[in-house]
Amino acid sequence: MKQFSLILGLVLIISTTLSIAQESQVKEDFKPSLKNQPGKEYPQVNSQGYARFKVEAPQAQSVNVSLGLGGKGGTDLTKDEDGVWWGTTDGPMDEGFHYYHLTVDGGVFNDPGALNYYGSTRWESGIEIPAHDQDFYMLKNVPHGNVQQVLFPSPSTETSRRAFVYTPPGYEEDPTKRYPVLYLQHGWGEDETAWSNQGHANLIMDNLLSEGKTAPFIIVMTYGMTNEVKYGGLRDFKVDAFQTVLVDELIPYVDANFRTFSDQENRAMAGLSMGGMETHAITLNKPDVFSYYALLSGGIYTPEEIQDSSTPKLIFLSCGSKENPERVQSAVKALSEAGINAVSFVSEGTAHEFQTWRRSLYELAPLLFSK
Amino acid sequence: MKQFSLILGLVLIISTTLSIAQESQVKEDFKPSLKNQPGKEYPQVNSQGYARFKVEAPQAQSVNVSLGLGGKGGTDLTKDEDGVWWGTTDGPMDEGFHYYHLTVDGGVFNDPGALNYYGSTRWESGIEIPAHDQDFYMLKNVPHGNVQQVLFPSPSTETSRRAFVYTPPGYEEDPTKRYPVLYLQHGWGEDETAWSNQGHANLIMDNLLSEGKTAPFIIVMTYGMTNEVKYGGLRDFKVDAFQTVLVDELIPYVDANFRTFSDQENRAMAGLSMGGMETHAITLNKPDVFSYYALLSGGIYTPEEIQDSSTPKLIFLSCGSKENPERVQSAVKALSEAGINAVSFVSEGTAHEFQTWRRSLYELAPLLFSK
Repeated sequence: MKQFSLILGLVLIISTTLSIAQESQVKEDFKPSLKNQPGKEYPQVNSQGYARFKVEAPQAQSVNVSLGLGGKGGTDLTKDEDGVWWGTTDGPMDEGFHYYHLTVDGGVFNDPGALNYYGSTRWESGIEIPAHDQDFYMLKNVPHGNVQQVLFPSPSTETSRRAFVYTPPGYEEDPTKRYPVLYLQHGWGEDETAWSNQGHANLIMDNLLSEGKTAPFIIVMTYGMTNEVKYGGLRDFKVDAFQTVLVDELIPYVDANFRTFSDQENRAMAGLSMGGMETHAITLNKPDVFSYYALLSGGIYTPEEIQDSSTPKLIFLSCGSKENPERVQSAVKALSEAGINAVSFVSEGTAHEFQTWRRSLYELAPLLFSK
Repeated sequence: MKQFSLILGLVLIISTTLSIAQESQVKEDFKPSLKNQPGKEYPQVNSQGYARFKVEAPQAQSVNVSLGLGGKGGTDLTKDEDGVWWGTTDGPMDEGFHYYHLTVDGGVFNDPGALNYYGSTRWESGIEIPAHDQDFYMLKNVPHGNVQQVLFPSPSTETSRRAFVYTPPGYEEDPTKRYPVLYLQHGWGEDETAWSNQGHANLIMDNLLSEGKTAPFIIVMTYGMTNEVKYGGLRDFKVDAFQTVLVDELIPYVDANFRTFSDQENRAMAGLSMGGMETHAITLNKPDVFSYYALLSGGIYTPEEIQDSSTPKLIFLSCGSKENPERVQSAVKALSEAGINAVSFVSEGTAHEFQTWRRSLYELAPLLFSK
């Protein structure tokens, strides 16, 4: 009996020690996510990138959060005696922005604590895991450009369509100054709000400009899923409808209503994911319209696709290190060998998510419209 | 037994007839609400103003929608055999926009089918009951002004603050033209997005301008709950912090960065509900700053409060017919008798909601900055 108790004691000590060791891995320095609704305490994130959730649903049978390490079906929350559901991800999340949702008793809802962002063709909850390099997209005490909603006439789709236009700080001050333009596209399931809301494109530009790291330019962002692409149906994607809206309707509207340089040399197009697919197709279909091409996690160009190697002043290809960086890097090597000015960028430690694309824009902007 | 069967039969026939009569009152011409997320079929509304909801939550025990005729705790949904919850309001809703939310097993969530609007200090679901006069705030094929986000420096609150600025169509075309400015405030629990998103202030102006019914002017909308007013704490509301932001920080920023007329004659302030309270206080505190004052469901002015009856070029007081219209009307009578130019407007069939305020802006705009 004594021996048995001793063994039992040892087992208890060992398992308690292991359990303490495991728990102590999660640092208790959780703070509200920067993407929370005003005044909301949860969700929270800690300095390691763990996310913690709190959901009130006292009579619910199950609450799950769609975030967590891959392949495990997210994070199941557990209910405390007050009917409040709690849970922490089973590991640190990648730096940056993530979409997520709750599943409450089999129904999909957003987290009442979080702000919503348009992704997956719906408004989803968003959470921000603080990144070591987040300074470049933070709101700082620097001169700010404006982001304005324009409603432009689109005869081809028989409606007024929405675009957002970033004008750099100082745009209103000198009514004679003109600017080059970057047309910047979102990904599948997102819309024209994505690059400002999730991407902070305006803050990235404000911060770059305040440090003199980029030339000022206008950014135009519009909805790119003109022909209602279904998920998984990207192979059947036809760019024609969107190309008409962009090239024949939006660009003339922007050139008429903003102080732009309206020549090919002063026009760039970039897109993330599906927006990269659109950029690829449209820049090749319309070599006289754009002179800077950028695909962010959005495929590659081959030298054979470029009719005249002097036409693109720059081809920029990027992706996250957790995607397929070799593809981007070898494409840039091939383009360079063919005499085309090409640059690659790989975002360290990120996947097919907005942190990759924020960093890509930060790297791309200084390369655009340089003399 | 025969007699009993006969009576039972009659009862069954009568109750069935009544039930059919009642059901036939609800017209089966439901269509998706105009405030749904793209492609979402539910919630729906019919031509009478009934709203119908569909929520998927197969394992839930109860699902309630916060909308319905007053005093009945909203609408309880019922689950069908596929685990889908359905329900229709117990009567027609008032015309126009309503905030709402779901309660799923005791937890408060938004309807995954609806767009979200900031109200009650959170992003809530929104639904639109088609109004007989909705044409004036619809998106039409007319020239559109722009709504732009500006981030203005606010030393008093030690941050960059956000405002939205509506510039009328043609603003970009003539760089010498200047415009008067209306400062337009939201209500308690809302923010600077409310007047564009829920109020369609930009579309109301675009439509009025296309018919030549108003002079063009700029509208500036910023966040008015600078000092974190708690619901029910409006009696303790102090306007000082917001007045500093508005008068000492935002107005100089707007006058420096937009082509405004920056004199008192060309500046108006209006606000709904709590925004009316702010308008009342700030216009009286700063008679040299604004010359048009408008309170939308936001109280009244008394003749005694107006130091110089020639100072306000116009006082506009409005509310819904389901609020307290006599108060607004008698206040305007008293102001008029005191020699002050005052106008009242009562929105028929509406309460303390955005349809009242959309109509108020539509009535107010043509009265502003008229020669």
